[in-house]
Amino acid sequence: MSEQRQKSEQEAFLIEGRNAVTEALRAGRPIDRIYIQDGVQDGPILTIKREAKKRDLVIKYVARERLDQMSETGRHQGVIASAAAYEYGTVEEMLQKAEEKGEAPFLFLLDNIEDPHNLGAIIRTANLAGAHGVIIPRNRAAGLTAVVAKASAGALNYTPVARVTNLARTIEELKEKGLWFVCADMDGTIMYDLNLTGPIGLVIGSEGEGVGRLVKEKCDMIAAIPMKGNIDSLNASVAAGVLGYEIVRQRMK
Amino acid sequence: MSEQRQKSEQEAFLIEGRNAVTEALRAGRPIDRIYIQDGVQDGPILTIKREAKKRDLVIKYVARERLDQMSETGRHQGVIASAAAYEYGTVEEMLQKAEEKGEAPFLFLLDNIEDPHNLGAIIRTANLAGAHGVIIPRNRAAGLTAVVAKASAGALNYTPVARVTNLARTIEELKEKGLWFVCADMDGTIMYDLNLTGPIGLVIGSEGEGVGRLVKEKCDMIAAIPMKGNIDSLNASVAAGVLGYEIVRQRMK
Repeated sequence: MSEQRQKSEQEAFLIEGRNAVTEALRAGRPIDRIYIQDGVQDGPILTIKREAKKRDLVIKYVARERLDQMSETGRHQGVIASAAAYEYGTVEEMLQKAEEKGEAPFLFLLDNIEDPHNLGAIIRTANLAGAHGVIIPRNRAAGLTAVVAKASAGALNYTPVARVTNLARTIEELKEKGLWFVCADMDGTIMYDLNLTGPIGLVIGSEGEGVGRLVKEKCDMIAAIPMKGNIDSLNASVAAGVLGYEIVRQRMK
Repeated sequence: MSEQRQKSEQEAFLIEGRNAVTEALRAGRPIDRIYIQDGVQDGPILTIKREAKKRDLVIKYVARERLDQMSETGRHQGVIASAAAYEYGTVEEMLQKAEEKGEAPFLFLLDNIEDPHNLGAIIRTANLAGAHGVIIPRNRAAGLTAVVAKASAGALNYTPVARVTNLARTIEELKEKGLWFVCADMDGTIMYDLNLTGPIGLVIGSEGEGVGRLVKEKCDMIAAIPMKGNIDSLNASVAAGVLGYEIVRQRMK
């Protein structure tokens, strides 16, 4: 857990689409400039304009072609904001946040999730499930790109994401601080039969490979989602949602 | 429920990527031809070759550029199969399937889900949650394209999808046959406090608009997923997974 908060290498970062830009404004994220497509006047765009004016931000009106060129996601919906890049958080700040709220720590750990849509959707789920942060391995994970930010629907403004060098070692260190770890795997115990309350880390693997062997060996429990169909596995972000909300359910009891 | 099984207008249909092609073979789907990238020899591709040979299918070895050109999803992973287009199922056949299995009907109904990745992921979830089918409105939904098939990870081979003209009317007709309907909405009752057992239809709306007013009025129950974060809503396919599995949990008790 010696991860330092890091400045990203990127100078600027694009936030694309109406929801993502609205959420960034609402969360008070530093924004350099907003590009809006000429002639677009509907409700969500007017809201963005109003919020931008409140904060004295520069709005530039540009042709659709210009936005198409700028866009990294291909789905700008008529609005792109340029902002400072997202910074990674630290595991310590997640634990602090839990302590300040008087809650048992609840973390998501992602092993081998390389798809940026899945990473974004899981950060979104972690936010709504009340988790205190998302931990990803430094080498194999998707970075915090514009696609991740858009798929997170604004959650990246609130939920810290930490990169660690060795996920198994981070689990070891967190176990010493009292966390229990549960990983998702088909050969585990049906999740309804496990006790998932208390300080917990939920480890999600990729769809193809699952959770890596070294990481799996560190886990205290292996949870299975009941599979009643013909195919192999859920989408990784759906699996994270189903398991994450089983933890929510048990915590609410 | 007068929907007839329909032949698609498309003559051929591409199945792209290793999982999707493997699942199509495993499910016995009629396949015309398989295109494999020259020189690719890893485990999943060898499995596909073996299965294809068992069924006397034509394999064509082509350059990567050729596959890139053919691909509709942009993620062919070295293999594309051409097959007959997916056919829509009927609501009657879903009810029959439930009856044959001696199970209470469990259907997913999608209102305004236009994103093909979400549609595919929800068909995948419906399959694994043991649902008997997915119902979509004829006008406003994404069709059963290659992108949907790929996102469904093979579930489209097993789980019927029916198109109906009027979702509210279909709900009315199914209520007469004893089904209860629950729709997802933030202003509902926390899902753990509802009785979601018995013959049930789960109605999922789009992320932006939610479930339409006319459809919502037909529902017997409104279920809320607990939201403990800062943003508005879960990804539609994650929400379908979380609610669908709450139904699974209550059915397993």
